[in-house]
Amino acid sequence: MGSEKMHRIPKDHPRYTSLRIRQRMVSGWRRGLAAPEGLLAHGRGEAFDYLLGERTQPEAAKAIRAAAATLLLARHPVLSVNGNVAALAPDSMAALARSLPSAVLEVNLFHRSEARARRIAARMKRLAGRRVRVLGPSPDARLPGLSSPRARSFKEGMLSADVVLVPLEDGDRTEALRRARKKVVAVDLNPLSRTARTASITIVDNVIRALPELTRQVCALRRRPPSELKRLATRFDNRANLARALGRMLARLRALSERRRALDPAGRRA
Amino acid sequence: MGSEKMHRIPKDHPRYTSLRIRQRMVSGWRRGLAAPEGLLAHGRGEAFDYLLGERTQPEAAKAIRAAAATLLLARHPVLSVNGNVAALAPDSMAALARSLPSAVLEVNLFHRSEARARRIAARMKRLAGRRVRVLGPSPDARLPGLSSPRARSFKEGMLSADVVLVPLEDGDRTEALRRARKKVVAVDLNPLSRTARTASITIVDNVIRALPELTRQVCALRRRPPSELKRLATRFDNRANLARALGRMLARLRALSERRRALDPAGRRA
Repeated sequence: MGSEKMHRIPKDHPRYTSLRIRQRMVSGWRRGLAAPEGLLAHGRGEAFDYLLGERTQPEAAKAIRAAAATLLLARHPVLSVNGNVAALAPDSMAALARSLPSAVLEVNLFHRSEARARRIAARMKRLAGRRVRVLGPSPDARLPGLSSPRARSFKEGMLSADVVLVPLEDGDRTEALRRARKKVVAVDLNPLSRTARTASITIVDNVIRALPELTRQVCALRRRPPSELKRLATRFDNRANLARALGRMLARLRALSERRRALDPAGRRA
Repeated sequence: MGSEKMHRIPKDHPRYTSLRIRQRMVSGWRRGLAAPEGLLAHGRGEAFDYLLGERTQPEAAKAIRAAAATLLLARHPVLSVNGNVAALAPDSMAALARSLPSAVLEVNLFHRSEARARRIAARMKRLAGRRVRVLGPSPDARLPGLSSPRARSFKEGMLSADVVLVPLEDGDRTEALRRARKKVVAVDLNPLSRTARTASITIVDNVIRALPELTRQVCALRRRPPSELKRLATRFDNRANLARALGRMLARLRALSERRRALDPAGRRA
């Protein structure tokens, strides 16, 4: 995996946060948690995050609130952990699992290898503590409608879940989970992706920001009456929310292009 | 670097070309040409290329023509080669260097390692042939205004160049080159990036498509009188061209969002 070589990024670099997150991603890959394809996927997300202004926008906040209510109402919520989540936000994912009364963490990899599943499960167990169940290697079930290695799952995991949180998921799995009549909460920076369009609740945000905020909302809503949680969950309209998130990206792209025109009168440094 | 494992991609896959380019990138990384951070940067480019429709748009074609004229008028043009260029388009870069009377190839890495600089220089030498000078390991100068390892350069390279081609460059280097009063031709898929806004001529296109087209234009313009080349170079308005490229992405994003809405009436698989 090579040495853990980290370059110092100057704090005043205009893309400091994004570059720090990128380093975390590269470090997760070096430690054998994420696949090289995960690095490419992360880069694609970066571009959409840039269009979002690298902030949790009101549409994401709204989706997070609905997701928190849905997870609190769930009988058997399962939180899916893939390589990129294990690299980028394992602590936030562990904290979220701890904040829910009966959540299970399930390792689920696009490019599955048992060694990697074991490494990720071990990391999540260490972070989540004894009270949280972590399903990782040796899957004992198959999710219908997915091709062989990706179908592997757990009877006491996704197979019996009523609500599944899939941060950074592929469209195929999201569709398979929906066909199996599960509620799916997705975190996806691309509001046009199949996952974003298929999920029950799509949080268009970076997992780095979305997962801690989701835990905060779970804690804030924990003592509210179920009737209020139900209202929050059912009133949420995913398609309308996605359209607004996309509209925000469009508006920002337009505003950026105009601001840039105003800031750079005929070649600032010509 | 692991084994050269390549997945077969079916030719009718909707993202065939993009996935093939991605494989080339992963293969370049496995061979120690590109850095893992390069995979991330490539993923980011993929998202913008998707917004561009993965084609050389008229704005890019216009910038390429101005760039060809500028390179032909240059006294000492330097073509910068980083890890991603060495992975994705080393042959096109070598062909471009051969098409110009006195171009020098200079290896320039964001995450510099002498071993990688040597590997890339060797690859470029093999592809470009004896007539083209390749500057790679053992830099003998520093570009002012850049932090330590990234400042390393060559007296007979960027330091004495009048025109520098930087495909896939970071904003800091582009700004440093502009401050040193060099003309900078950039290839960047993000029309809002610092590189795109700081360069003298920005080609908003994938290097895979832009570099061969640039060589074709160099060959097409080679026998034109200098007065005509000057006209082509000076009439080009980078800011206006960038605004148009951005407008094209905006229009496509809007069209995509409308098409999606038409295709997915209220949650296809709810």
